[in-house]
Amino acid sequence: MLLTHIRGPRDLDRLTPEQLDQLAAEIRTFLVDAVSKTGGHLGPNLGVVELTIALHRVFDSPRDKVLLDTGHQSYVHKLLTGRQDFSKLKSKGGLSGYPSRAESEHDVIENSHASTVLGWAEGLAKANELLGKQDHVVAVIGDGALTGGMAWEALNNIAAAKNRPLVIVVNDNERSYSPTIGGLANHLATLRTTDGYERFLARGKDILERTPVVGRPLYETLHGAKKGLKDFIAPQGMFEDLGLKYVGPIDGHDIEALESALQRAKRFGGPVIVHCLTEKGRGYTPAEQDETDRFHGIGPIHPDTGLPITAAGADWTSVFGEEMVRLGEEREDIVAITAAMLHPVGLTKFAERFPDRVFDVGIAEQHAAVSAAGLATGGLHPVFAVYATFLNRAFDQVLMDVALHRCGVTFVLDRAGITGTDGASHNGMWDLSLLQVVPGLRIAAPRDADQVRAQLREAVEVEDAPTVVRYSKGAVGPAVRAVGRIGGMDVLREPAPADAERPDVLLVSVGALAPMCLEVADLLDKQGISTTVVDPRWVKPVDEELPALAERHRVVVTVEDNIRVGGVGSAIAQALRDSGVDMPLRDFGIPPRFLDHASRKEVMAEIGLTAPDIARQVTGLVSRIGGRYESDAAQSAESAGAGRSAERTGPGAAPKAPTAAEPVRD
Amino acid sequence: MLLTHIRGPRDLDRLTPEQLDQLAAEIRTFLVDAVSKTGGHLGPNLGVVELTIALHRVFDSPRDKVLLDTGHQSYVHKLLTGRQDFSKLKSKGGLSGYPSRAESEHDVIENSHASTVLGWAEGLAKANELLGKQDHVVAVIGDGALTGGMAWEALNNIAAAKNRPLVIVVNDNERSYSPTIGGLANHLATLRTTDGYERFLARGKDILERTPVVGRPLYETLHGAKKGLKDFIAPQGMFEDLGLKYVGPIDGHDIEALESALQRAKRFGGPVIVHCLTEKGRGYTPAEQDETDRFHGIGPIHPDTGLPITAAGADWTSVFGEEMVRLGEEREDIVAITAAMLHPVGLTKFAERFPDRVFDVGIAEQHAAVSAAGLATGGLHPVFAVYATFLNRAFDQVLMDVALHRCGVTFVLDRAGITGTDGASHNGMWDLSLLQVVPGLRIAAPRDADQVRAQLREAVEVEDAPTVVRYSKGAVGPAVRAVGRIGGMDVLREPAPADAERPDVLLVSVGALAPMCLEVADLLDKQGISTTVVDPRWVKPVDEELPALAERHRVVVTVEDNIRVGGVGSAIAQALRDSGVDMPLRDFGIPPRFLDHASRKEVMAEIGLTAPDIARQVTGLVSRIGGRYESDAAQSAESAGAGRSAERTGPGAAPKAPTAAEPVRD
Repeated sequence: MLLTHIRGPRDLDRLTPEQLDQLAAEIRTFLVDAVSKTGGHLGPNLGVVELTIALHRVFDSPRDKVLLDTGHQSYVHKLLTGRQDFSKLKSKGGLSGYPSRAESEHDVIENSHASTVLGWAEGLAKANELLGKQDHVVAVIGDGALTGGMAWEALNNIAAAKNRPLVIVVNDNERSYSPTIGGLANHLATLRTTDGYERFLARGKDILERTPVVGRPLYETLHGAKKGLKDFIAPQGMFEDLGLKYVGPIDGHDIEALESALQRAKRFGGPVIVHCLTEKGRGYTPAEQDETDRFHGIGPIHPDTGLPITAAGADWTSVFGEEMVRLGEEREDIVAITAAMLHPVGLTKFAERFPDRVFDVGIAEQHAAVSAAGLATGGLHPVFAVYATFLNRAFDQVLMDVALHRCGVTFVLDRAGITGTDGASHNGMWDLSLLQVVPGLRIAAPRDADQVRAQLREAVEVEDAPTVVRYSKGAVGPAVRAVGRIGGMDVLREPAPADAERPDVLLVSVGALAPMCLEVADLLDKQGISTTVVDPRWVKPVDEELPALAERHRVVVTVEDNIRVGGVGSAIAQALRDSGVDMPLRDFGIPPRFLDHASRKEVMAEIGLTAPDIARQVTGLVSRIGGRYESDAAQSAESAGAGRSAERTGPGAAPKAPTAAEPVRD
Repeated sequence: MLLTHIRGPRDLDRLTPEQLDQLAAEIRTFLVDAVSKTGGHLGPNLGVVELTIALHRVFDSPRDKVLLDTGHQSYVHKLLTGRQDFSKLKSKGGLSGYPSRAESEHDVIENSHASTVLGWAEGLAKANELLGKQDHVVAVIGDGALTGGMAWEALNNIAAAKNRPLVIVVNDNERSYSPTIGGLANHLATLRTTDGYERFLARGKDILERTPVVGRPLYETLHGAKKGLKDFIAPQGMFEDLGLKYVGPIDGHDIEALESALQRAKRFGGPVIVHCLTEKGRGYTPAEQDETDRFHGIGPIHPDTGLPITAAGADWTSVFGEEMVRLGEEREDIVAITAAMLHPVGLTKFAERFPDRVFDVGIAEQHAAVSAAGLATGGLHPVFAVYATFLNRAFDQVLMDVALHRCGVTFVLDRAGITGTDGASHNGMWDLSLLQVVPGLRIAAPRDADQVRAQLREAVEVEDAPTVVRYSKGAVGPAVRAVGRIGGMDVLREPAPADAERPDVLLVSVGALAPMCLEVADLLDKQGISTTVVDPRWVKPVDEELPALAERHRVVVTVEDNIRVGGVGSAIAQALRDSGVDMPLRDFGIPPRFLDHASRKEVMAEIGLTAPDIARQVTGLVSRIGGRYESDAAQSAESAGAGRSAERTGPGAAPKAPTAAEPVRD
């Protein structure tokens, strides 16, 4: 095994070409073996084995900065930089599925949101220039990520500084998650084809006379082998028009060709694009033969067949996807939008049934939202299905285009809340706070499959305001039946009849946390604390009946799968204040910090978002406050119902202590 | 006067070429006369007089959708669509400075944030296609706005549908606010030059053989006059590479040439770019001769000289700008970033002094933030100065690039809070909520010029987390002296010694609202209500001393110039809950709705954000709650200090009513 002897990038220097090929083969075997056990991003990493080897031979990380966009293709980079224990990949205590500065000095960008790398690279290159450093910066970006606006903004700036060295490697596999779309994809395709070469070669002489080629006599270039010509730096197509030099296309699985092109780019002394053609899933037959990009990110699979080891039950995504097909059949005006994630967000069936009514806009959430405003203004009802964390990118467009213009657009946020193993940037823990500030926008947090279907239907009925339906990742839990209704809120549990007049706790459950909240109520019951559990269903705006309902209790407790700051709990607290209902409230949710990768369950345990933790804190609070903090209405109710509170309050009440899951300070 | 007879676009149809030129001249005179009285966007509108006339002659608004990016260049459009009373432009009850659907059926996009129009256009064109409508969509976008990533995302999608009609007019004045920068600007410049034409003409024959030109025989095109050739639709440069057809460049002040090009584009049957060259400030000598783009947006000026009628005092922006120069001299690692607004955000002097250390990234807030992360990681301290409302565009980058990576980047938010006359999309009323959720980020809200200087210095000292300094628009008020300090908070007013042990109200003032909060305290004083006024200075995180300080009072009141939802008041309320301090709090701020244009003072009066309004509500609250809601500590303090509360409380306490400025529901 060569691989086990690679402790760092410089160990690559002494390998022969044959050994490099052997190393690539070993890495592929390692990846299939390791990732089929743990799950992870298999396809993207199989595609960049040779490219990553070449990058680390040509550049001297960590002095040179090797930057990887999105970061899910960093496994090979990890293997070459001293991280070969993949046994707990993406699990608590194991390697992150993305670059991680805590793991290695070779890692720079941890953010898994796409299209950022060119901005980082531009900033780092500027800093090097200002500080007089000669270190190199190389950024690897997928063709799909180039469809993101940030990439354009960065390219425009990079091109403006013709003498600032920066190597951009376009990892072109003709697909981001699904095949890459749009004008850019067509342009890359042109560059890719032989026809493109030939036109390029025909223009070669002309170009040579105008372009100084660093360190290479003109005739040599002119008379070089075809292979040599491919790594000749020259103006090309739209990159030329922007002012960027171009090398390529390069066979992304030919280490020698890659090194030659990267060396030339490194020496060039200005911004240059190296266009590499790679094959996602390369070398793994099940992935190579799959057309749906099923091996982009996987759970544990059988390594030989590529089939999942455990069959998952119904998940939130497919419940949505199936209801969308029904809605599409019922209403011709419903159209669907995805930002390069047709399959992951569950729109495959809708796309098969209504191919003209689904729009993949590329990795372009901003455009998805603005375009949706246009579609709605034009008379359609767009449903934009997107991972919750990625909607952050379109906040301004949701606010200023969709909401300001009162457009009937439905945003479906998949993977909301704690997603766990993908780490900090994949948790969908921001939406319930961010979207609270958007005037007129309504947010549904369905608690089970039935509610996903029902609330999606309610959402698409709204034609004069944006709506949001947000749900968790993975398997959907059992149905949670309502036992009553107050205003628009489902009552999930009522206090025992004896406590009905003046129950202790109003527990407000958000979305998928309903079963946990019911468990909290059971635990409180054992402490003699009576609890009403409600699911507001629509968490924004706060239900008008909520303040009056709250007032019949002693304490309000809210539980949400979102950052606590400015979330549903905060909104309910404000609604109570605005109604003059000044009573104790505790809001449980995610503390305001970035969460390390671990399973959803582990993360929730770590942050105290579990039934026993919540029950314990609520018990402490109820016993401490006892009969104080009664509102006028409550006081009358109490005098009628006889003072139960005295039983639990007295001089020896529990000492004051922070009662919420985590302090708000960060 | 021809202008007064134009009631709608169709009145343009019967005018002769000479009359159209006369109309253009009348419109220019009208604009200089009207806007010099009211203030407004003069330069951009003078530049699009002929273009707007031509658009409304060729397209049939409102059936056809005439879409204007950013919208500050909509004055001519207003004049041609029945809106000629500019006497109260941007004032309460007068015309909006932007398109407004409430004003006219000819207006579509109200959002003044740049680069959105292509996304809207793409959505509308898709809707037309799906619904079988033959209506046209034409989008006007400046060359500056093309640097925004959203424009790229949209172009990429537009180019993908070769048969979906869509006319994109590039209004190229070589500057957005300042001269447009980057690779794209260079490319547009190439297209602009005669040299560019000639190269284009040389390629003409070749192109003609490959490109079907709708409704025009080949030889006619080939042998047409040079002028005719300019409006010939052909592949061109980077637009060609994306798959977009191109017409131009067209003289944007030649109505006939514009109409000819637009007609051709309208008939083309696919996406096409019409490249128009215009001159900002055209026809108004002071604007034409000004190089600093001072006439982009103006206050009232003398129409002949272009000089401001009233000289303004020191404003927040220049206080920042001057301090930045001093900081730049002291620290070589400090660099400045602007998103195409070098002058408006006050970086002119810094740029003059340190030309190598200021980066104008184009209208590209996302890139500004990500690039800043790169700069910080590379060893510099970037200060990104931006209007508060525009930072919304970079939320994900602030969160996932700057904050997740703990980069020392300082964001300076100008025009925070209510800005007033520019209407809904210019108010900087979101930042204190949005940024609350960003872990580790610290927010300063300086109350006066001294604090701007001091807090900017504190901010750039932080090297392991993002910092924000936010201040208002316009003239900075007088210095507000601190009379004490508790934790990191400035005490602005202490209660009278007699009330010091148990004052009634803790009033937390945010930023520029300090003088108003002191006025509230005076008013409360007259009601016998004792008040402590503090300015936390850093509003995030909540000062650790605040809960204990609050507990010594009966009521906490917060006042902020930001949307109430999830703002500073909410954060303080949560901090109190987390400390087990359950006491009444009222949070005053901006209600969760979009605000119509009016002066800042008028808007604040309308939403109840005035000293008398706040004092009245606080008085009601204090009299209602009296001595109830005492915490343990407070109760002991009270028994020691003798019960003052009984004086103001009794059976006849004020009825319960909403006490905050506006209910939270939207």
